[in-house]
Amino acid sequence: MHTERFRGQMDFLKEIEKLKIIYRQNGVVDRSRPENSAEHSWHIALMAIILEEYVVLKNIDILRVIKMLLIHDIVEIDAGDTFLYDTEGNIGKSQKEEQAARRIFGLLPEKQRIEFLELWREFESGTTPDAIYASCLDGLQPLVNRLMTGGYVFRGEELKTSQVLEKKKFMEKASPFLWDYAKDVIKESKDKGLYT
Amino acid sequence: MHTERFRGQMDFLKEIEKLKIIYRQNGVVDRSRPENSAEHSWHIALMAIILEEYVVLKNIDILRVIKMLLIHDIVEIDAGDTFLYDTEGNIGKSQKEEQAARRIFGLLPEKQRIEFLELWREFESGTTPDAIYASCLDGLQPLVNRLMTGGYVFRGEELKTSQVLEKKKFMEKASPFLWDYAKDVIKESKDKGLYT
Repeated sequence: MHTERFRGQMDFLKEIEKLKIIYRQNGVVDRSRPENSAEHSWHIALMAIILEEYVVLKNIDILRVIKMLLIHDIVEIDAGDTFLYDTEGNIGKSQKEEQAARRIFGLLPEKQRIEFLELWREFESGTTPDAIYASCLDGLQPLVNRLMTGGYVFRGEELKTSQVLEKKKFMEKASPFLWDYAKDVIKESKDKGLYT
Repeated sequence: MHTERFRGQMDFLKEIEKLKIIYRQNGVVDRSRPENSAEHSWHIALMAIILEEYVVLKNIDILRVIKMLLIHDIVEIDAGDTFLYDTEGNIGKSQKEEQAARRIFGLLPEKQRIEFLELWREFESGTTPDAIYASCLDGLQPLVNRLMTGGYVFRGEELKTSQVLEKKKFMEKASPFLWDYAKDVIKESKDKGLYT
C-alpha cells in the first residue's frame, strides 16, 4: 500500500532520530547531561520566531529560516559535532558534512531532497539574509546556554574570551542589537570564570 | 540598553531550556535515556514539513502548524508530561496546563504572548485544520519511535493494542493515509510484543 515515496520520507524521519544522541559541548539546565543537537535545533527555531524584530536584513522569510535551523545539524549524524573552537577537528569538516548531507537528505523524494540540500548549503555558506539570520541564532544560543548552565563542558576545554568574541562577531551582520547582547553575555560569563 | 521587551523575550527563551529535561515515556534510539519533550517537538515539526502532502484537510498553514508543534509541550515545564494512557494522571491536567501556559507565555511581550497562548489553546482544542494536522503528528511520532527503540518504557506500563488504537484513531481526520500507516506500525509493534 505505501509508496516508495512515502517509505523514503519515513526512512528520513527515522534516520534523524539519531540527532537526539549527537551531543554538544554545553549542558542542559540541571547539568545532568550534555545538550544534544536535536533539542538545540528546536531551541533556535523558537528563537528565530521570537527575535525576528531585531534583524536589520531585509526580506527575511521566517519559514525558510525555521526550516534551515531545524535541519542545519542533521549532517552531524554522520560527521559528528565539531566544537567551534577545535581548529584541528574542523579540518576536512565541510567535505564530511557535504557527504553526510547527500546521504541523509538523499533518503527523501527528489523535490524535498533538493529543497533540503539547497537550504542546508545556503545555511553553510552564510551569505543570504535568511542564512545570516539563522547563523546568528546558532551563534547566540550556546552563549546564553553556557552562562545559564554555569559552563557545563563536555570535553573540558578552556576558552579565551578573545577567541569567543572573534568567533561570534559575525552575528553583528544580522543584528547589531543581538550582537551587543551577546557581548554582554560573554562579559558576564567571563566575570563568572567561564572564559579565561 | 536592553529594553524590558527584550528582557521578557530572553526570559522566555531561557525558561524553555527546562523543556529539555522533561522526559517522556519513549526512549532515544540507543536506549540510553528517555526522549525529552524539546527533541520530540523538533522531530514533529520536521514531520509536519515532510508529510504535508498526505493531509486531506484544506487550508493548512504550515508555518502555524510548525509554531504550534514547537510550543505545544512547553506547558509541561510546570505541569509535567502526563502519559497519554494514564487515566488518573490526566485528571485536572487541562487546568494545570492552562495555568502553566499563562505563566510561561506570560513572560513574552503582549502581542507574542497572545499569539502563542492562542496557538497553544487551538492545538489543545484540536478543532481547526492546523490543530488537527499538528495533533496527528504528535500522535504518530511516538508510535514510530516506540517501534524503533524496541519499547523503551520509562515507567514500565504495559499497553494493550486496543487502547492504543482507541487513543490514536483521531489521526484519521487529518490523514486516512497516515492513519493506515499508523495501524501498520501498531500491528508490527504488537507482533514484536511491544503491546499486549
